[in-house]
Order: sequence, then structure tokens, then C-alpha cells
Amino acid sequence: MSQASYERDLDRNPANHQPLTPLGFLERAAAVFPERMAVIHGPIRRSYAEFYERARRLASALAKLGVGRGDTVAVLMANTPGMLECHYGVPMTGAVLNTLNTRLDAGIIGFSLDHGEAKVLITDREFAKLAAPALTLARNRPIVIDYDDPVYDGPGDLIGEHDYETLLAAADPDFAWWPPQDEWDAISLNYTSGTTGDPKGVVYHHRGAHLLALGNIVTCAMAKHPVYLWTLPMFHCNGWCFPWSISAVAGTHVCLRQVRAKAMFDAIADHGVTHLCGAPIVMSTLLNAPPQERRPLPHVVQFYTAAAPPPEAILAAMAGAGFNVTHLYGLTETYGPSVINDWNEAWSELPPAEAAALKARQGVRYVPLEALDVLDPETLAPVPADGVTMGEVMFRGNVVMKGYLKNAPATRAAFAGGWFHSGDLGVKHRDGYIQLKDRSKDIIISGGENISSIEVEDALYRHPSVQAAAVVARPDERWGETPCAFVELKPGAAATAEEIIAWCRQHLAGFKCPRHVVFTELPKTSTGKIQKFRLRDMAKAV
Amino acid sequence: MSQASYERDLDRNPANHQPLTPLGFLERAAAVFPERMAVIHGPIRRSYAEFYERARRLASALAKLGVGRGDTVAVLMANTPGMLECHYGVPMTGAVLNTLNTRLDAGIIGFSLDHGEAKVLITDREFAKLAAPALTLARNRPIVIDYDDPVYDGPGDLIGEHDYETLLAAADPDFAWWPPQDEWDAISLNYTSGTTGDPKGVVYHHRGAHLLALGNIVTCAMAKHPVYLWTLPMFHCNGWCFPWSISAVAGTHVCLRQVRAKAMFDAIADHGVTHLCGAPIVMSTLLNAPPQERRPLPHVVQFYTAAAPPPEAILAAMAGAGFNVTHLYGLTETYGPSVINDWNEAWSELPPAEAAALKARQGVRYVPLEALDVLDPETLAPVPADGVTMGEVMFRGNVVMKGYLKNAPATRAAFAGGWFHSGDLGVKHRDGYIQLKDRSKDIIISGGENISSIEVEDALYRHPSVQAAAVVARPDERWGETPCAFVELKPGAAATAEEIIAWCRQHLAGFKCPRHVVFTELPKTSTGKIQKFRLRDMAKAV
Repeated sequence: MSQASYERDLDRNPANHQPLTPLGFLERAAAVFPERMAVIHGPIRRSYAEFYERARRLASALAKLGVGRGDTVAVLMANTPGMLECHYGVPMTGAVLNTLNTRLDAGIIGFSLDHGEAKVLITDREFAKLAAPALTLARNRPIVIDYDDPVYDGPGDLIGEHDYETLLAAADPDFAWWPPQDEWDAISLNYTSGTTGDPKGVVYHHRGAHLLALGNIVTCAMAKHPVYLWTLPMFHCNGWCFPWSISAVAGTHVCLRQVRAKAMFDAIADHGVTHLCGAPIVMSTLLNAPPQERRPLPHVVQFYTAAAPPPEAILAAMAGAGFNVTHLYGLTETYGPSVINDWNEAWSELPPAEAAALKARQGVRYVPLEALDVLDPETLAPVPADGVTMGEVMFRGNVVMKGYLKNAPATRAAFAGGWFHSGDLGVKHRDGYIQLKDRSKDIIISGGENISSIEVEDALYRHPSVQAAAVVARPDERWGETPCAFVELKPGAAATAEEIIAWCRQHLAGFKCPRHVVFTELPKTSTGKIQKFRLRDMAKAV
Repeated sequence: MSQASYERDLDRNPANHQPLTPLGFLERAAAVFPERMAVIHGPIRRSYAEFYERARRLASALAKLGVGRGDTVAVLMANTPGMLECHYGVPMTGAVLNTLNTRLDAGIIGFSLDHGEAKVLITDREFAKLAAPALTLARNRPIVIDYDDPVYDGPGDLIGEHDYETLLAAADPDFAWWPPQDEWDAISLNYTSGTTGDPKGVVYHHRGAHLLALGNIVTCAMAKHPVYLWTLPMFHCNGWCFPWSISAVAGTHVCLRQVRAKAMFDAIADHGVTHLCGAPIVMSTLLNAPPQERRPLPHVVQFYTAAAPPPEAILAAMAGAGFNVTHLYGLTETYGPSVINDWNEAWSELPPAEAAALKARQGVRYVPLEALDVLDPETLAPVPADGVTMGEVMFRGNVVMKGYLKNAPATRAAFAGGWFHSGDLGVKHRDGYIQLKDRSKDIIISGGENISSIEVEDALYRHPSVQAAAVVARPDERWGETPCAFVELKPGAAATAEEIIAWCRQHLAGFKCPRHVVFTELPKTSTGKIQKFRLRDMAKAV
């Protein structure tokens, strides 16, 4: 039989083809588990029926303000119920959610409001001091809605022409939202916190958001009704799509405005939190909590971390504290995590140092990512799986962004040759697990030899007095570049630059050892990443 | 901003758009968990690396025989490793897998080989006695490959021109299979075992198979590395897509040629089976096992059942035996199960009879099914959610078939108005859970009143002497039709027709009570469903 027989009179129609979208997850949870707790925030408790109703009211209110398909709704919000509602209510109108990083400066926020042509800005009262100057700087003038979170009692003005709760009160609880016309329609816009040049606007679509949301559940083996603590900012890759994942399994969102140890331990103990995500700084906050802020955990809590490989000491301490740490990896362009250090049970039998070394690897593709490989950036040939040969980490699949908004050259460059070029350098181990060695721009080239700053940092982290460390290239007349280390010491600990360098000589080839060591607090980005571009400036001045 | 900005220069390309397919699940499992046990069959143990290699060898062997995109490969096989391999190896060539029901007669098998234009038939030696006459009857002459399962030591001839294992041994273990060109491409063909007329060929596509396979995991809350016992025939809706689901979570398939109590208890005890699926007959087989065939269960085992609502007594007995029963519902046209009786924890507190009544409802849509409703078949208006008003159960979404092969009129009728018409009649309860009341053709209309045969059967099942029961319409001059009951008594139990009718009068409105009761063994289809069309013939003769 020819392929034609399997195509003739077997077309897509509304009965057998619907656009993939994560929005239906909430509709289903509200239908099947209307009374289940969906959202906890301070004294606020909302069921799935209420969560869904509020999302529809938000969509209705936005529609009344003229928001529709292809419009941008920017939000400057903490991890609140309103922020969760925006993840549904905004796309329910056909509009695109643009979550802004609340830790950025007014200039970048203003740039984003202009570039994304935000029609509406919803701003938490706490961030009025950021929103107000950003609006002054922006040429574009969005409709401004204040979100005055009752749990927030700090300073901040109401600066908008509308109040969020007033709008919702007047809106239609039965608003007839509709799935996207096409699953390729944009659902959200996330500006990268680029260290050079203007931020790029990463566009996600409904198909990818649906698939990654389910991918979180399958890849992370999430059972029904998890209790998810919001330590990861939702403005960061839409909270790795967990605002959508949790609805698919009718779990409970525990909101959190600020990542503080006491609030985390209280949430875990009081609400039975099962899962949380965060950068390494969140683990440090938990582990360094003073005894009076700690509470016993009701069960083993799953902690998903990304941004930096978890060091052995942290893993051991987390396990001792009752957390199981899983290492994820991804980029804004890949909907957040799309790579997992998928744990092989046999590895748990290894000595802790070996197990930690295995867990430091970024790992393998998420189930919904079709391909992940380390390729020669010139030829796109895969590097040998030898754990040594470096190449660029590349992604291919349905959880890769639609592209950069209004930036065709950057989109073309990112997708050259049919792969998404991450800009991260890494190796592929014999078992296919990939491991990052550096960002392209973070590699140090000294006397013609490539030095992985991560490798040097790993050695520094193993020093008993070192709390945190970062290594960057320092221009050098003779060698081109040499490694320069920036070190944060543990409270009460002491070390000299000579001791640190001697330690490195014990653990690294000589050419990889830092020539200079600077003791300082490390500058971090709003998402907890160390700002190497600042360190590079500092290194030049050493 | 206009929608255009979110579309311009943001097109699909190989880096960000790949066809959805379940085939990549196996490739991933083999890459990430190469050593994990994938398949157990008698003394056979195969890792994921081996399973994947054999699937690629099968694809290579078929390609050498000329099989390619849009060709049909029919298989007449038991639940064996070869059958699992066919679920991957056949579509890896671009061909379509047509699993044939081994319990059908040669005429229907021959019809299927002709209608599906099978290019290849792979037949288990046990079914040579069925395949040989079917091939004689068929006008089409496929290439025949014998699958000579070493675990099978019964009678049966080798009838093909090729041997499965010999072909695989000569094939390419690194065969470069490719995802489908389009996710709408057909992946499998399943003939319905229609009770009237020619079977219809239900076509599944890669997109739907991918989504339902993941839907099984999310909806059924399957953790990583389940151990799945093959009590459900894989020729039945591709084993409800579980051949693909299990790879996505790198679980273990435990094959089983025949559903026998001892083999099931042994598999559960020896291999730590966590999940199995089956019609009610499988539950009866487990519960009626003699003591010497039973083994203690190592943990609570998840049992997914469909085809008929589990009666209270069976649920209680299954719980007592250590099984947790979940009730699913679907049709061949919906990839098997696409509706789940999603359990609300609060219901577990109810008295057993109430809980069983709730579990008897078919339930709510699977996560990947976009819509499920009970509609007036004429107007397509939803019936009120009152638990009383009957309508036709209809489906809409990505896990609804592509259509019927070479049968445009049936496809058009099935999809009229943008909904898939199931032909099942039911009601919608206040909480949105649907409950089947009957197949359209199984409804009994007596004196102008509709009688649900299921309701009468429920009453019969509650009688302490009744093992199984089925009720059909018997033509009646005065009433049009009256209910006629066919009853299987429990071993050693006794009852008269008068006692049974009196029992019904206590539990049902008078007009719903059977006028005739026949004690007999109930005729069942190859998939364990009671053959009501035969009972109708018998009823006419009463």
C-alpha cells in the first residue's frame, strides 16, 4: 500500500487535532479536583476551582482593557498567587506573558517594555520603585495595573491606573477563553539577562510549554498532588514551566516572596512540601540556617538545582539534611531545564566523591527534548564521547524556543545548521552524559592551552576554607591570559593567596593554577549567577 | 504589538520543531539506562541496549525486504519480546504496525491482510494454524516471517519464507532509523472487532501515540522504572500504548503468553511487578486462583482495568488481595484508555458500597485528551450534569484516531460536528464524571421507557449466587422489548429464575426487571467482552 492510503481522507479535524497548550491543565484540575488546595500564600488558601476562576477573571479583565492575540502583558511580580494567575490568565486572552526580572535596573526594564511593546504592565507594589523610573525611561506607555499583595507589608506606592483585585472583582468568572489558534502561537516572552549588549527576547510557544510542563513531571518522576515550594523565581524561564506542570498533577503551589531559611523550613514542615527548585544559593541558605530557624522535614524533599554543578560537600550536607538533590541544566532558550542528570541507582553505591563527580555532570536530554549533543561548532560533527574533547553543547527539539523577538540575525545564528547553539562548552562522557566545561566566553586561553575555569573553580571549592570561588581570564603579556581567582572565605576561616595557589598546584596542572588570588565577596546576577564580566574588569585592575 | 511580530522570523526549523513520536523513548532509555532490564520472558533477560539493538535490527531486516514509509506490517503474535520489538522496529522503517487479534477467525484475519494490504506478516508459530488458512483466504500475499518463540513449546508449524531470528542476526544493529517525516504519519492500524459488518481499520499517528504514552505515565502517576506485567494483549489498541510508555520511564516489560493465575502471581513475586492492566476477567483469574498458585505480593500492585465497571465485591476482594484497582475507559478509536476514574482521596473514607459506586463511573478525560463530554447526538448540546439525562459520550483531542483506513464515510460519520462519536450512551454527574449507561445498541426500550442493561446487570451482580451476568433486549409483542438476563452462577451456588427475578424486584423499578432468566456460560469476545449479539440471538429463541 502506498503512503497515500494512510493520508487520504484522514485529515486533521477538531475531533482529532487540537493545539497543544498548558492552559487546559488548569481547566482539568479545576474540573476534576475543584476542592483541592491549589495555592497557599501566607494566610491565603485557594482551591483549584478558585484558582481557575481567578485566572478566567484576569483574562476577562485584560480582554476588557483591549488585550488580545499577540499583545504583550509584562509583569513585575514576586512569587505570588497573582503571578501564577498571570501564567494562565494572560495567555487565555491570546496574549503573551512577559515576566520581568525584578532584580534588574530601571534601564533594562524600560528597554524590555519598549522592545516587547507591552500593552499592559502589572506591577507588585514592592517593585513600584523600579517600575516607576522604568516607565519614565520607556517610550512605550503601557496600561499599568497595581498588584497590592496583602502578604506584603513593606514600602511601595500604587502607581497604576488600575488595581488588580478591583479589576478581577468586576470581571467575568466564566470568561470563555479559548485554546490558541495554533500551538505555535507565542505564550511567553523572557528577556535573557545578557552580560553584553541588549537583552534578547526569547519567545516560547504553547506547544513547547505543554511538552516541557509534562516533561518536568515525567523526567522528574512527579507523582500526583505534589506540594511545590516557590523558591525559584517565576520570572526565570517561567519558573522552569512549573506553574503549568503543577496543574497537570493537581499539586499545591506554596508561594514565597523571598527566599529565607525560616520561611522555607516552615513551609516544608507546615505544608508538607515535596519539591522545590533553586540555584545553589538556595541550598546554601538552607544549609547555613541557624538552628532556631530549622524544622524537621516530614519526608525526603526533592530539590532540583541548576546553574552550577552541586559540589560534593553541598550534596553530602543536603542529603544529611533530608533533601535529595537532582541536577538539571538548560537555558532560557530551552524553557529552563531540558537536561537532567538522570541518576543511575548503581551510582549510589559509589564513594561520595565519585558519586558527586557523576552528579556534577549536566547529563542527558529531558524526555521531551529530541536531541542533545556536543558538536564541533564549525563542522557540527559530534565530538568523540571521550570525556575530554571539548565542543559546543547543542539542542534540538520541541522544547527549544521559537526564536528571539524582532531579532532575525540572532535567531538565525542561534539555529545555524539546524541546532540550537547554547554557547556552552562541554564534553561528552563515554556513557553519553554531557558535562559543561565553560561558557565559550569563560574559557581561559593561556599559552595556547585552553583552561576550563570550572575545573579551576572545582579545585578551589575543595579547599576547606573556601566558601565560593570564581576564576576568570586576566590579560597577560607573556601568556595571553592567565587564570585569576576570586575567593569568598567561610565565616571565621582564613587563608593566604600563597596557600590557595599551593593548594591548586597539588590538584591541577601547573598552567591551570591561578596566578592571582583576590579575596572578595563575589558579585552575583539577579538569578544568583556569578557575574564574571565584573570579575574580568576587576582582574584587569589586579 | 501585532501578532505578526510573534510570527515574523520565528518559523519552525529542525532545531526547534521535531515530529512527536514514541520511538525516541526507546532510543533515550537505551542511551541513559543501557544496562537496565527492559524485557523479561521466561528465561530471557534483555537490557535496554539489547532491546534497542534488536528493534533496529528488525527495522533493518524489514527495510531489506523492501518495507518503507506507508507500508503495512501485520503481526499475529502473543505478548512476547518480538511483539514489543515490532512496536518500535516496524515504525522505525516508516511502516505501519497492524497487530492482529489472535483470537479471531481466519476469515477476519484474511480480510484484514487484504484490507490493510499487508506487505509482511510476522506470525508466532502458535498461530500458524490461524495464519495459514487466513493466507489462503486472502487475495493479498504478504511476505511471511515466522516468529518461533523459544518459550513456546506447543504445537504449530513454520509456514513462512523467513525466520525472525535469522533475519535479525543478519541485520544492521546500527540501522539509521529516522523519526517520521510528519507527526501525523500513521504508526499503527488496529481493526475493531465489530460485531456487525466488516471490521474497521483504526489508524493511529505518531503524535497521538507519543501523547497517550506520556499520558499513561502522568495520568496513572507512574514513577521511574515500573515493572509492567503484560496481561493485556498488545494486539488490543497497541496494549493501550504501554509498549511505548514503559520506555519513557525505562521500566521493565514482563512478557506473558497466556493469562494464567500462577504465572501472574509468580511474575509479581519474582520480578516485583508494580503495574498490570486487564479486563475484568483478569481480576477474576487472580481472585479465583487456588491457594497453591498464589504468592504473597511484595507491595501494593496497581491494576488498571477497563471494558466493564468493577463491581463492589471484586473491588473489595482485589483490595484484600493487595491490588489497587483504577478504572479506565476508552475505545480502539481513542488509543485505548483516554478516560480515567481519577480518584479523589476523600472518597476512600466512604462506605465500600458508595466508594464502589463512584469507582464504577468511567470518569474524566486523560490529561492528553482535550475534551470529553456527553452530548445530545442530534444537536451536540451537552446534556445537563444531573447524573440522569442520557446522551452520547464524545471525545475531542489529540488522542483520537486519524480515522478509519479507506473508509471515508465511516470516518466522516465518526467525526460529525467536530467530535468523535463513541456510540456509548451515558450520563454526566454533577461533578463532571461521566458514567456509561449503555452502548447505543445495547439499550433496551420497553414500553417506551429506556432501560440501561448495565443497571440491571449491576443488580444481578449483587446477588450472592451470581458470578457473571448480562442483560439484552428480547423482542416482545406487547412491550416492544423486555430485558432478558443471562446468568453464570458461582461454583457450587444455586438459584432459580424466580429467585433472581424476585431479587431484581427488590432493587429495581418493576419495568426494568428481567422477564426471563437463562442460566448459561456467557459467550465472550477474544478481548474478554461479553458477546451481547450472541445473547440477543439466544434471547429471541427463549
